[in-house]
Amino acid sequence: MGANIGVQPSWIEAAPEKGSFRSIFKWGDPHGFKHPNAKLFQLLKETFRLTDDHFRAPLNDGNRPVVYHHPLRAVTPDHVSAISRIVGDENVSADDYDRLKFATGKTLEESLRLRQGEVQSVCDLVVHPRHNDDVRQLVIYCDREKIPVYVYGGGSSVNFGLRPSKGGITLVMGTHMNKVVRLNETNQTVTVQAGIMGPDYEAALNEAPHRYQTRHRFTGGHFPQSFEFSSVGGWVVTLGSGQMSSYYGDACDLVISQEYITPVGDLKTLDFPATANGPSVDRMMIGSEGCFGVLVEVTLKIFRYAPENRRYFGFIFPSWAKAIDAGRDIAQGQFGMPAVFRISDEEETHIGLKQYGIDGSLLDRFMRLRGYQPMKRCLMIASAEGEKRFAGNVKRSVKRICRQSGGMYLTGYPTRQWVPGRFKDPYLREDLNDYGILIETLDTAVTWDRIHPLHQGVRRVVKSRPDTLCMTHASHFYAQGTNLYFIFITRADDIDDFVAFQEKILHAFQQFGGSPTHHHGIGKLLSPWIQPHLGDAQMAVLRALKHHFDPNTIMNPGGQLGLDLNGRPWREIC
Amino acid sequence: MGANIGVQPSWIEAAPEKGSFRSIFKWGDPHGFKHPNAKLFQLLKETFRLTDDHFRAPLNDGNRPVVYHHPLRAVTPDHVSAISRIVGDENVSADDYDRLKFATGKTLEESLRLRQGEVQSVCDLVVHPRHNDDVRQLVIYCDREKIPVYVYGGGSSVNFGLRPSKGGITLVMGTHMNKVVRLNETNQTVTVQAGIMGPDYEAALNEAPHRYQTRHRFTGGHFPQSFEFSSVGGWVVTLGSGQMSSYYGDACDLVISQEYITPVGDLKTLDFPATANGPSVDRMMIGSEGCFGVLVEVTLKIFRYAPENRRYFGFIFPSWAKAIDAGRDIAQGQFGMPAVFRISDEEETHIGLKQYGIDGSLLDRFMRLRGYQPMKRCLMIASAEGEKRFAGNVKRSVKRICRQSGGMYLTGYPTRQWVPGRFKDPYLREDLNDYGILIETLDTAVTWDRIHPLHQGVRRVVKSRPDTLCMTHASHFYAQGTNLYFIFITRADDIDDFVAFQEKILHAFQQFGGSPTHHHGIGKLLSPWIQPHLGDAQMAVLRALKHHFDPNTIMNPGGQLGLDLNGRPWREIC
Repeated sequence: MGANIGVQPSWIEAAPEKGSFRSIFKWGDPHGFKHPNAKLFQLLKETFRLTDDHFRAPLNDGNRPVVYHHPLRAVTPDHVSAISRIVGDENVSADDYDRLKFATGKTLEESLRLRQGEVQSVCDLVVHPRHNDDVRQLVIYCDREKIPVYVYGGGSSVNFGLRPSKGGITLVMGTHMNKVVRLNETNQTVTVQAGIMGPDYEAALNEAPHRYQTRHRFTGGHFPQSFEFSSVGGWVVTLGSGQMSSYYGDACDLVISQEYITPVGDLKTLDFPATANGPSVDRMMIGSEGCFGVLVEVTLKIFRYAPENRRYFGFIFPSWAKAIDAGRDIAQGQFGMPAVFRISDEEETHIGLKQYGIDGSLLDRFMRLRGYQPMKRCLMIASAEGEKRFAGNVKRSVKRICRQSGGMYLTGYPTRQWVPGRFKDPYLREDLNDYGILIETLDTAVTWDRIHPLHQGVRRVVKSRPDTLCMTHASHFYAQGTNLYFIFITRADDIDDFVAFQEKILHAFQQFGGSPTHHHGIGKLLSPWIQPHLGDAQMAVLRALKHHFDPNTIMNPGGQLGLDLNGRPWREIC
Repeated sequence: MGANIGVQPSWIEAAPEKGSFRSIFKWGDPHGFKHPNAKLFQLLKETFRLTDDHFRAPLNDGNRPVVYHHPLRAVTPDHVSAISRIVGDENVSADDYDRLKFATGKTLEESLRLRQGEVQSVCDLVVHPRHNDDVRQLVIYCDREKIPVYVYGGGSSVNFGLRPSKGGITLVMGTHMNKVVRLNETNQTVTVQAGIMGPDYEAALNEAPHRYQTRHRFTGGHFPQSFEFSSVGGWVVTLGSGQMSSYYGDACDLVISQEYITPVGDLKTLDFPATANGPSVDRMMIGSEGCFGVLVEVTLKIFRYAPENRRYFGFIFPSWAKAIDAGRDIAQGQFGMPAVFRISDEEETHIGLKQYGIDGSLLDRFMRLRGYQPMKRCLMIASAEGEKRFAGNVKRSVKRICRQSGGMYLTGYPTRQWVPGRFKDPYLREDLNDYGILIETLDTAVTWDRIHPLHQGVRRVVKSRPDTLCMTHASHFYAQGTNLYFIFITRADDIDDFVAFQEKILHAFQQFGGSPTHHHGIGKLLSPWIQPHLGDAQMAVLRALKHHFDPNTIMNPGGQLGLDLNGRPWREIC
């Protein structure tokens, strides 16, 4: 790592200008950066046949003031006054910058458009509710006045989930409704307001003995890549998964009870660990993506925090097929599950070894000697958590299975290399985009028996585009299957060209037996794919619930979850 | 065990008369029996101040031919002809015996009434569908003709869940629709028709290498007490739990996908292990108790079968509080969960030690010496399954926690004593009922922080009835709570007296923070308690789904899940 191959570009290291488009589309901390290392940079230059000249100065950094002209669509001055009376003037903003900021998620497409000053969709009014009663009054008022209501958690949606396609108001949950309500050590649950952000949530749990006089420290066990900039409520309503979900469970597994405010009233579920009281209304609300109501409070399982028991381990396999065989055998092995659990395909391994500084190292030479060849070999990184001997036995069992499947033990080194950057990769995007290179991700779920056709089929589609990198990993494991997470790096003539490419990949998911998404939610971007996927009968059930909760269609209208498209493309609604 | 204390009654050892009421209400195998052992018999005599004279001959064994006169309520001769044309004459029965048999579950109340020849509710016609298309045609026809449709799986309902309160037809799923459709070793799933019974299901999985040429043997991991006489479909639609659920999960955790035939059409969910495609329609159907449609096929998770790794262990604690503390600590310990996991309260321990032949033994004397006193001490029995070292570590971890909580290790002996009878206890009921002693069970779920008030509160209600035994155990453990399973043995002047007593207990569940049930479903018996429990908002959601699937209210009408009571008591509908 750090070998100086050619000239490195002067990656932007300054926070975006205040009030600029860049300040909206840039990932995460304005002062946060993660630049491609020298080897990755070299690969990009080779792939796209770019010279150092190309990297002398960013093409278009989007560091320009936000200016656009979008009239109000669903909110009148009378509405603004009424809403201000509910939440107070200081919690309402009709400022153009705010209207755009809280209308924008983290798709590449949005980023590209904003970079060139193209504003597609904004809300009419940004509202920061202070408490449940504010939300209740707002929802009642908006339902009466037929004003669309959108909800903004951490803003990390990658599917236009928070796009206010029909104008109206956007509720920003993180401003005030971001508290821990109570921690119940006896039941090992925590109740939080929906707007609390990942790091605040986890810190409260880690520091529970100090803050809440508990006997144990706790963890939430939920660490999506967006962890630092996503909200707990967002995790729940979009069915998120964390990087340690194979052990801790997906968001849907963590929820104990919820409180929603809907157009037809409040809905509060109960905190029983399991009952046989009919179909689970709790599960009907998880994943509802703001279409049924506003999640205001959620009670989640928490876990004892014992980082001292954590074990890291990594393996290299001669092929993707061998690595996946091992992954399945581990997931079906009944010794508990690894926490971090990630298998990279040939191409991702190739690039990952560069990123982790392993490519060209002594270890690399040893691997090659042992027959683990570039563009064939596949990397597995993993960790185990939980009680000490349990974690030890997970590691031991994983080792046994991996060796049987031709894997070579790499110690915990690659996992340790991965850990520090695990929330940082999204920062790479701005660097690449600054020089006209596009990077985006799409994920899908799959059963074990369809994984290879799906992987090959999707790769074929991605690689049929000239000069395109396609990295894939499986990172969420179940006895019945896993996910495939595709990262593609390409160039495009224009945004529409990229969008069409993205649609081809989504089509391939459908064609080769994947789901539209594993843990990114449907939002509006994937809305064309949900009905073909779930079928008419399931969609009719979701629409029946939508009609029950939101008869006037004010909750996140405009294509979300494919509920209100009525045959039109969602983009026409914007 | 087997000490001869006084005269033992001549418990009935003959199969019921063919065509008799007894043949309908008797549990399980007509030739199956489990008699109270000498110590339990002695306890019953003492408790109810009965002499050996009382036990000379059964009071009323119900061994009389089924005779009753209930006219058809919802089915005309034309209907019968039409239905016969769908399924064939041989799969239709209007015979009085069949009409009663397939209308009867396993509540004590039903048993008591049938014993005295009282028939409350029968269906008009018993129908044995052969395949999905039969079910589809029947549902379409009945929806058009407004004929109620009830579904009979194994007939082990303990809440009148299969009672045909409004007449109509009862579909018997086990006659033909009882096959394994496919076993998918790669995905570790099995797809079965809903009518397959527990033992057939488990045998198919255990014998998978032979039957399906798989590499591994498998288990379903689901062993309710009714295992031998309940259907897989029944487990799913009533949200059942097995005796090893703490490790394998409850029925809802085992389901991967389902196929229902509903009045508005077929509904088939998908087999992805996890996705973020909106709210889970799968979870909306699990627990729907025949109110939304007929479950015809279900795909479940299966597990590698490794009985050679099974470990048994048991402990005695000085008190219920200490035992529950240990139980909670185990459930929150993050080393995996025991499979069998059961803590008996003081009174159940007292009676259990008699049943298991430990009372009065050397072990008993040793326990007393060590300070574990009768009616204070509490027994925990447990097992571990899964990979060998995993199971070993569960046992080791449980031991550590139990010792910290004042528990004394009893080896695997008590668990081994429990195992052979684990599906047999229901046979005790006929013996007791034969001599006028009543035994029934009710279960509830509870969070850890409410367990002691609930246990004490319910016990107070039960024990306020003179001469009543009340045994309680927790047997399904979660990090957030457990269940309490109450077994009460009493005498009653008449059935209504017993029913009123039962209602007092259910009221106490509600009063002291329990759920109406943990794993018995709601059925019709618990229907008065579901709305107060879930609240109006959740009930409105369930009714919205009911309306969606079953606009003409033909699916299990008459109080099921409290969906169509419209303010009337369910008993008035019968």
